[in-house]
Formats: sequence, C-alpha cells, structure tokens
Amino acid sequence: MGSPHVDVYAVIMAGGSGTRFWPASRERAPKQFLPLGGREGEPLLASTVRRLAPIVPPERVIIATGAHLAGAVASAVPDVPRANVLCEPVARNTAPCIAWATRTIAKRAGDSALVAVFPSDHFIADEPGFLAVVDRALAAARRDYLATIGIVPTRPETGYGYIELGADIGDGARAVARFVEKPDRARAEEYVAGKRHLWNAGMFFFRAGVMEAAVKRHVPEIPRLLAEDPFDAAFAKMPSVSIDHGVMEKADRLAVVPGEFGWNDVGSWQATWELARKDAQDNALPQGSVAVDSRGNLAWDGTSSPGKKRFALVGVSDLVLVETDDAILVIPRERAQDVRAVVDELKRRGEKERL
Amino acid sequence: MGSPHVDVYAVIMAGGSGTRFWPASRERAPKQFLPLGGREGEPLLASTVRRLAPIVPPERVIIATGAHLAGAVASAVPDVPRANVLCEPVARNTAPCIAWATRTIAKRAGDSALVAVFPSDHFIADEPGFLAVVDRALAAARRDYLATIGIVPTRPETGYGYIELGADIGDGARAVARFVEKPDRARAEEYVAGKRHLWNAGMFFFRAGVMEAAVKRHVPEIPRLLAEDPFDAAFAKMPSVSIDHGVMEKADRLAVVPGEFGWNDVGSWQATWELARKDAQDNALPQGSVAVDSRGNLAWDGTSSPGKKRFALVGVSDLVLVETDDAILVIPRERAQDVRAVVDELKRRGEKERL
Repeated sequence: MGSPHVDVYAVIMAGGSGTRFWPASRERAPKQFLPLGGREGEPLLASTVRRLAPIVPPERVIIATGAHLAGAVASAVPDVPRANVLCEPVARNTAPCIAWATRTIAKRAGDSALVAVFPSDHFIADEPGFLAVVDRALAAARRDYLATIGIVPTRPETGYGYIELGADIGDGARAVARFVEKPDRARAEEYVAGKRHLWNAGMFFFRAGVMEAAVKRHVPEIPRLLAEDPFDAAFAKMPSVSIDHGVMEKADRLAVVPGEFGWNDVGSWQATWELARKDAQDNALPQGSVAVDSRGNLAWDGTSSPGKKRFALVGVSDLVLVETDDAILVIPRERAQDVRAVVDELKRRGEKERL
Repeated sequence: MGSPHVDVYAVIMAGGSGTRFWPASRERAPKQFLPLGGREGEPLLASTVRRLAPIVPPERVIIATGAHLAGAVASAVPDVPRANVLCEPVARNTAPCIAWATRTIAKRAGDSALVAVFPSDHFIADEPGFLAVVDRALAAARRDYLATIGIVPTRPETGYGYIELGADIGDGARAVARFVEKPDRARAEEYVAGKRHLWNAGMFFFRAGVMEAAVKRHVPEIPRLLAEDPFDAAFAKMPSVSIDHGVMEKADRLAVVPGEFGWNDVGSWQATWELARKDAQDNALPQGSVAVDSRGNLAWDGTSSPGKKRFALVGVSDLVLVETDDAILVIPRERAQDVRAVVDELKRRGEKERL
C-alpha cells in the first residue's frame, strides 16, 4: 500500500476548459492550473501529480492536454518530463485521449503495463486514504479488470453519474452492475439511501492491453485513426466520445472500488469556499483583508501581484469576490454557477482577451 | 444675473480631508479632487471653479488648501494662478482660513472688495439657478451684510446645521433669526414642516472689511496671529474654530438668501450613486460592465488605468464596489458611511500607504 509499483503509469487528463471560475480561469489558464483546492498556491494539476508521487514518480506520469496549454503544464508540473506531455491538436473528449495515452504507454512499457487515469482538477482531502483505494483498484487491474473508483455519496447530487455496485470480486473490489446517467433529484435520493450507488469520479485503472482491446471492440475507429498519418489530421477525425459512454458502459469485466477520502470535484467558487481555510466569521479572504460585519464570503486575489491589493468588506455576507488584472466579479456564493452568464455576454461582445 | 462683477473674489475652501470615499479618496487625494458629482471625470473642485466662471474668473479665485494638497490643486484647476493658492501649514478649521483669504483679498483689492466663500466639494445640479442666488447674496453683501445662502430642505436631515429665517430685508434676502445646531430627528421634521428653516451649506458673502471687522471683534486672536512672524508658527497657534461658531453666530447684520438649485454635499458613496447616470436597473457602473440580475449597484473604477478592468456583477443589489490600484471595497449602499471602520482598522495596522 503506497509502495512503488515499477509498472504503473499515471495518465492525468488536463485538457479541460471551462467557465465556472471566470475571471480567474481563462481559456489559456483553465481550472486545473489554478490553486483552487485549498493548498496555498498549488494548482490542482500540481496537487494531482504530487499526491500520486508515492506510487507513481513524475517520470511515469503522462499528461494529456491541449496544445495551447503545453506551456501552462510545463510551469505547473516542471518535474514531469516534456516527452510525457501529450498535446491533443483538438479536444475530442476522453476516449481518444485515454486511447492515445494508453498506446503511448504500451509502446514504452508493453501491453501488460498498468495504467491509472485521473482527472487533473479534483481535490482530495485524505491523501493516504486515497492511495490505499488506488492500490485496491490497481490490484483489480492486475487481474485484468477495467477498474474504477466509486465515491461514496454524501448528498443526493444530480450533477454526477453513478455506478451501481455488483458482486464482491475480492480484494476490496466489486463488480460493476451498471453505469447510471445523471439522475433526477428523487432518484439521487434513492441512490444515497440505498447505499448501492457510488459517484463516478472519472478515475480508471487497467492493463494497457486490456483497455486497447476494449477500445478496439467498442470504438474501432479510434485505434484505426491513431495509426493514421498525419497524426493531427487523423486526430481531428476522432469521434468525440467519453471513455464512460464509448467503452466502460459497454465493456465486460468491470470492477469498482468504493472510496471515501474527502473527494471534491471543485465545481464552482462555492466549492473553493468550502475547501478554503476560513476565519471565525466563515470568511475565506486573502491575507491582510479587512472584514467588518461580514460573514461567509470568499475573496480571491487572482492578480499578477498577489497581496498588493487590500480587500475590504463591510456588511456583506455569502458573496464571492474575484479580482484579476483585468476583471472583477461579485456574485453570491449560492449563485456561483451563474458566472457562466458573464462569460456568455463577453463572448457575445467579442471580448476575447477576457475569456 | 450671472454678469461679471469686477470686484468679486471667490474663496474656495479645499483643505478638507475625510474617509467616506475610501479607497478612492486618500489623504493626498481627498474628496474634492475626485469626480464624484456626476460630471464625467470632473473633480468636485474643478466643478466648483467652472460653475463660478460666469461671475468670477479664475484670476479672482482664491483656493485655500493644505500644503500637502498644493500639487493636487494645481492639477485639478490649472487655470487658477499659483499665487492664488493659499496653503495652510496646518488645518485650523474655517475661521482662520477665511480670515487669511479675506486679508489676502483686502490687500489686493481693498476693504470694499466683495468676497464669496464656497466649499470645494459640493454638487449643484441647476447652475444658472445657483448663480442667480449667488447674485442675490452678493447684493446683500454690497449692503454690508454678512450674507449666506440657505438651502430649502427636502428632507428632515439631522446631519446639517439650520438657519432660521428672519424679516424680509429686500432684494430677495431675509435677515437671519438664528443659526441652529444639528437637530434631532423630531426637530428636523418640525423644521421641514415649518418652512422657516434652511440648511446651512457653508457659503458666505461679504465685503472684505466687514468680515475683517467681525473676526476682529469675535475672535481677535485670529487677526493678531495673521500679523505675526513667522507665519507658519503663528498659524499653528490659531484657534481651531469654524466661521459659523466663531463669527456668524455672534455677528450682527446677517442676511440669508433661500436657494433651491439641486444642492448635494456628496456625503458618501450613496450620494455619488444618487447623482450618477444609471441604467434601467438603477446600476451606475463603468462603461463596459456586465450586470446580470443586479439592481441599484454603484461600481467605481478609481484605478490609474480607468476602463482596463471589467466589472461583472451577478445577482447582487444595492452594493457599492470601489476599485483602486491597491484596494477594493464592497459595502451595501445603505451602509456607505461605515467605510470609516475600514479606514480605522488600516490606521490601527499602520498601513499608511493605503490611507
């Protein structure tokens, strides 16, 4: 547990874009490059790599990202060799991405190499607990399962897919009865009460050859296009399909390991507030801020000179205040998702430099 | 009405400090140097000088200010000759200030010169109406009255002094029955209902010799110290007394001219919001701002590069948001006065550069 496995490679998917952290996140600096997870100054991507280091050293970490993000990756995780950064010429969802990374690993270490796939932009509170669960999932992968981790749900969330538990297959793993689409509220409440459904957190564990066979069977155009030249033109023809829909939901011999390790997908400023260190009035503010009669606020200094600007809040509660060099956002925490409306408006105006 | 009077001098009191517009206002850039009055980009001091130009050209405008504000005055009102800027070595309230300016004018133009004294940091909506009332007050001053303008009250304000109307003395002026201290709420309501009380707006009109005689009689140490050398040391010994308490309340032959010209003393960010041009949702925001489901907000760009920063508001109402190069303030409009608490805290911390 936590000990090195010489044959384990990690694939970290760092190609995501998104608008939910505007104005701090931008097209060239999306969420995974921001220190949103509560660790002072550490981008989520860097946290993801660091957290895996006890079982996968940086030399065996493959980062899959977009070509426009290569520089940001190099800055965020300088220990990962440049040759390990796979830059997708265009974004084509997770199935082509994982297939390409798996092909790369198979060429380097053979079909039997173990591969562990992780999103780059999630937070995990209990890192030793996480590594223990990863170890169990890798054990299932060694037995030629396509394995995943299912997060034990803590609320009736309607924004995630669920995994229904099947039979016990030993080593702390269960078979997957089925993958379930995002449920409505009533069904999500049933899932939480029933204790047979886990959240799908987008983590996958497999031998390279097992995944390649499954992809070839269920989305055969992916391996065909991966073999074509020129690569960029071929990749652009990839079907935009997720590994869940394209492969996992159709594959046999699926395993899931339940996990409880303080997982958070950091979905909005609300999550950042939840994860942040807060003062006695539940404010999460930059050092040196002045708060008077104010509770439950998040202020975020995303300027290029952090600490230069003094934040002063008087008589306000449950607000999010985000400051960057060229924009400032004020929004109630409970409406944090609606920052999308601002991004839509800036797009409509053609203010590309602020997107 | 509005025609030039060759013998009229204006004294504009621009030495005020204050904290109610922090972080836009600073010790070296107090309120009168900020464009708070609704005229795009025009500091209140510049508005005050411009508004008087039809009856007092800049060459006859005397600016009384603090030594640390001389540069700010020169920038704000470049048409006023440097020799007309009186820099008080220390602030000693309005009586020494007005006495010094009056002495300066008497030396230049004789005892019979007419002097009109104005605060530098008020807003006036109806400028021709204002000039007409000034003309009436100057007419009373020509008749050797110590004259003032009384603003017809529009609400039971407890933050101002009042002037009780006396007998009609002709030319649209009334005698002053008495100056009244800031009233409590019940009394303020009586004043508004009774229609015999006006707001004291700190504007005074007199012949230089008449004011000098009154000051000599009621605060004799002021003219004595004005004659002493060295000037700075003598000025520091001045009693800190207002012209109202020190002279007007005790003097004879007082006149008041009632005025209704959209006067506003711009007492807080709330007033700035009231005076500002607003959109259909009552927001007063910098050009280019994005407001979604937001009403009644004031956003103020006090940075050194106005327009660079995009303000985005989602789902917030009746807030004041002020941005400068080194600070940002969020406060409900109705609590705008409480910005003082932030300034007090910064003082306590010794953050002089932000005061």
